[in-house]
Amino acid sequence: MVLELERTVEFSMVDLANIAYYPRIFDLAHRFFEATWPSICGQTYPQVLYERRIGFPVLNVDATFHYPLRYGDTITARITVPHLGTTSLAWRYRFYNQDGTLVWSSRQTTVCVDMDSMDKLPLPDDIRAGLEKHFEAEDEV
Amino acid sequence: MVLELERTVEFSMVDLANIAYYPRIFDLAHRFFEATWPSICGQTYPQVLYERRIGFPVLNVDATFHYPLRYGDTITARITVPHLGTTSLAWRYRFYNQDGTLVWSSRQTTVCVDMDSMDKLPLPDDIRAGLEKHFEAEDEV
Amino acid sequence: MVLELERTVEFSMVDLANIAYYPRIFDLAHRFFEATWPSICGQTYPQVLYERRIGFPVLNVDATFHYPLRYGDTITARITVPHLGTTSLAWRYRFYNQDGTLVWSSRQTTVCVDMDSMDKLPLPDDIRAGLEKHFEAEDEV
Amino acid sequence: MVLELERTVEFSMVDLANIAYYPRIFDLAHRFFEATWPSICGQTYPQVLYERRIGFPVLNVDATFHYPLRYGDTITARITVPHLGTTSLAWRYRFYNQDGTLVWSSRQTTVCVDMDSMDKLPLPDDIRAGLEKHFEAEDEV
Repeated sequence: MVLELERTVEFSMVDLANIAYYPRIFDLAHRFFEATWPSICGQTYPQVLYERRIGFPVLNVDATFHYPLRYGDTITARITVPHLGTTSLAWRYRFYNQDGTLVWSSRQTTVCVDMDSMDKLPLPDDIRAGLEKHFEAEDEV
Repeated sequence: MVLELERTVEFSMVDLANIAYYPRIFDLAHRFFEATWPSICGQTYPQVLYERRIGFPVLNVDATFHYPLRYGDTITARITVPHLGTTSLAWRYRFYNQDGTLVWSSRQTTVCVDMDSMDKLPLPDDIRAGLEKHFEAEDEV
Repeated sequence: MVLELERTVEFSMVDLANIAYYPRIFDLAHRFFEATWPSICGQTYPQVLYERRIGFPVLNVDATFHYPLRYGDTITARITVPHLGTTSLAWRYRFYNQDGTLVWSSRQTTVCVDMDSMDKLPLPDDIRAGLEKHFEAEDEV
Repeated sequence: MVLELERTVEFSMVDLANIAYYPRIFDLAHRFFEATWPSICGQTYPQVLYERRIGFPVLNVDATFHYPLRYGDTITARITVPHLGTTSLAWRYRFYNQDGTLVWSSRQTTVCVDMDSMDKLPLPDDIRAGLEKHFEAEDEV
């Protein structure tokens, strides 16, 4: 099951050429990432971080910029989980604009860590179960 | 010849876990990218953009986050050019902290465009010559 | 009539002390500012900027930081217009968290400009009429 | 004695009108603020925060945007301390571009806090002595 979320490209994202400044597309991806947690495990990401003391720092990113994101565009993110390991997992992001054009795709590996020690942790069962619902077999992103 | 530049991790880069928020590492890479232009073609990037009307948007990014960047770290960027095509080129970034630890590496493909039409352009001769000085054969980043 | 809008404090806003980094509170205010335009004149801010070629750069800001904004907080912005001149106007922002605590207040003067020449422009009638609906007499912010 | 520091306006600061997005001028001010600490007390701001466990959150900001900051501008910040209280102090920033034009001025009140409890602290003697060197009588900023 694909996680689907929507946001508008805001003023602060775009550069002097009126194209989203590319580091801010990663920031947008993180905002979508945060918004997935209630449907994964019934908790917000602040709750996961602060109450469960678990975090998911990024280890590796591959991203392709297919088409410009412009101010005012409505971006639909389609998010799946192509890999679930013991302590790490991968996320696949596909961003589409209001015309249905694929504008950005990315595969990102994150690792589950203890927020106090920053040591790797096995994925907790409830989070693993929630992520499995969004599994999608690996392909070329 | 490796381009070598240095910057400090500033307050605004780090998150609540005191680790650089990963989209801001891409922003740091762009700040280094901007700083390379005088040694590539004797012009600043604002001059390249505004006077020559040429830009270099990113097409593809691959990045590995080897080690946390923390507030106050001194980051040395080592930048080379692993690929020079007709209209596109690749950049390789390796970031080291003050202990000599590799903290981040990335390969990024950019394309040369006309800033008015956003159409692809062949790399101008002087810029190509300047980039060739920083060529380094492809490897696994 | 007070304009009321709501947003969550996201991960990228907070610093190593888990308090919103203060420049990002101004960024949040701008995101709210952008979101007011449909109820002011029936157009989005991208339409105002791109189609009408009108912008509202900031001339002066006064802001008081009453209480920390923390990750996960739900911020309700209450926005009014305390001053409407010929070419300039003032905005008053009051941000409250989910406990009803006033966390931030600001008075900001902006000027209406032609986006091509950056020259001052008299406020267009429809925009003035829309802003008048949100008038609130001046006080100490 | 005025603290004087210099930085270039980088790509990520400017918006689609090629004017610095105003929240990022506050971010620039914070980067200058961080850079003043070695000349105030012989320590970097990361050392002040992490080793001494002291921070200086902002309580109030007044700022005037006199003239656009554009990509590639060289900004000289002139920083003084117009007020030194028991636990709080004020900073005055004046930014000039490469033509000597005053582009931005701001007065900002910060409070000295214990980074663990966030309680107010009296300014430590060495920091107070360092700040006194940069005192400049109050005026209209």
